[in-house]
Amino acid sequence: MTDPRSVEDLKQALKRLPGIGPKTAQRMAFHLLERDREGARLIEKTIGQALSRVNHCKRCNNFSETEVCAICASASRQSEYLCVVETPADLEAIEQAGVYRGTYFVLMGHLSPLDDVGPEQLAISELMSRVAENTIEEIILATNLTLEGQATGDYLLELLADRPVRITRLARGMPMGSELEYMDPGTLDQAFSNRSQP
Amino acid sequence: MTDPRSVEDLKQALKRLPGIGPKTAQRMAFHLLERDREGARLIEKTIGQALSRVNHCKRCNNFSETEVCAICASASRQSEYLCVVETPADLEAIEQAGVYRGTYFVLMGHLSPLDDVGPEQLAISELMSRVAENTIEEIILATNLTLEGQATGDYLLELLADRPVRITRLARGMPMGSELEYMDPGTLDQAFSNRSQP
Repeated sequence: MTDPRSVEDLKQALKRLPGIGPKTAQRMAFHLLERDREGARLIEKTIGQALSRVNHCKRCNNFSETEVCAICASASRQSEYLCVVETPADLEAIEQAGVYRGTYFVLMGHLSPLDDVGPEQLAISELMSRVAENTIEEIILATNLTLEGQATGDYLLELLADRPVRITRLARGMPMGSELEYMDPGTLDQAFSNRSQP
Repeated sequence: MTDPRSVEDLKQALKRLPGIGPKTAQRMAFHLLERDREGARLIEKTIGQALSRVNHCKRCNNFSETEVCAICASASRQSEYLCVVETPADLEAIEQAGVYRGTYFVLMGHLSPLDDVGPEQLAISELMSRVAENTIEEIILATNLTLEGQATGDYLLELLADRPVRITRLARGMPMGSELEYMDPGTLDQAFSNRSQP
């Protein structure tokens, strides 16, 4: 280690970011100290602000600076619909598409035994209390169609089976703009199984 | 934008890191806030410390917390040799190999007109003052063998041409452990041109 102590500490800390190894951390530390000290200050400041201000909405579990987030607080959302997603990024994608006017519940992850993420690490008990309020008519399970996302969906399906609520999952099939030639067998299987009359 | 303001600000700030786009910044912000708040605090703290403590060694221009860095201050280094490298990571690699006991000069980058890095952005005037001290007998140009590194080396070679000092460049040829079958034409060209009697 020929780097000064505080540069070494910074490199070690940057390795805590997901997907960042020693070489990239080194490059980032170099960039911040040599090319963009203003950016470094901005990252320092925004981390501090986010840590102190951001908590979870007590209704939907999404990140929120207020006790109840803007979507949950909105009178124009159809609160009888609850769409369960894995992450804030998934919620954002649905909002951007503008295709849904109900409310959300954000699990903040998916089941992943290999990464030590079990049901206790996700906000599943909060989801069950939300469902127990009996104001919800339909739960739309919108976990990802990855292995982990599907396992999470299956797990929730089982947990929610005896609740007096309609449970649905997002439709599976060919995405818009896609070509048969390039579809994977799993998607084609779903597209055939779920085919419908026009 | 459905994320709270401070999450949005954090995502924007993380995009200042090299090679980080909006999707990765989103994933990093999620990870820091949901999975590793301790890591987030560590990054915040180490950025602050590095910004306030780290400056450049006034001899070699490497990062240093002291006016003169440990290598430059060491009496056991051969100060008549000056090895010019692009970055602290390059210096680190040479130190790790333990093959050189002279001193260094760190340019902190390479010439790259496309990124607006010209001679003024590198520490070239500091290098020239160092050379003007007349205590150096040999300058080893150890810029990378990339296009930019070679252009930087060529530029320095020209600048230093009339100084009363021996100028050398690192040997070019086949790296240890390599196989001819997988060598690129440029390396093979160097290996043939620079061949020597055993």
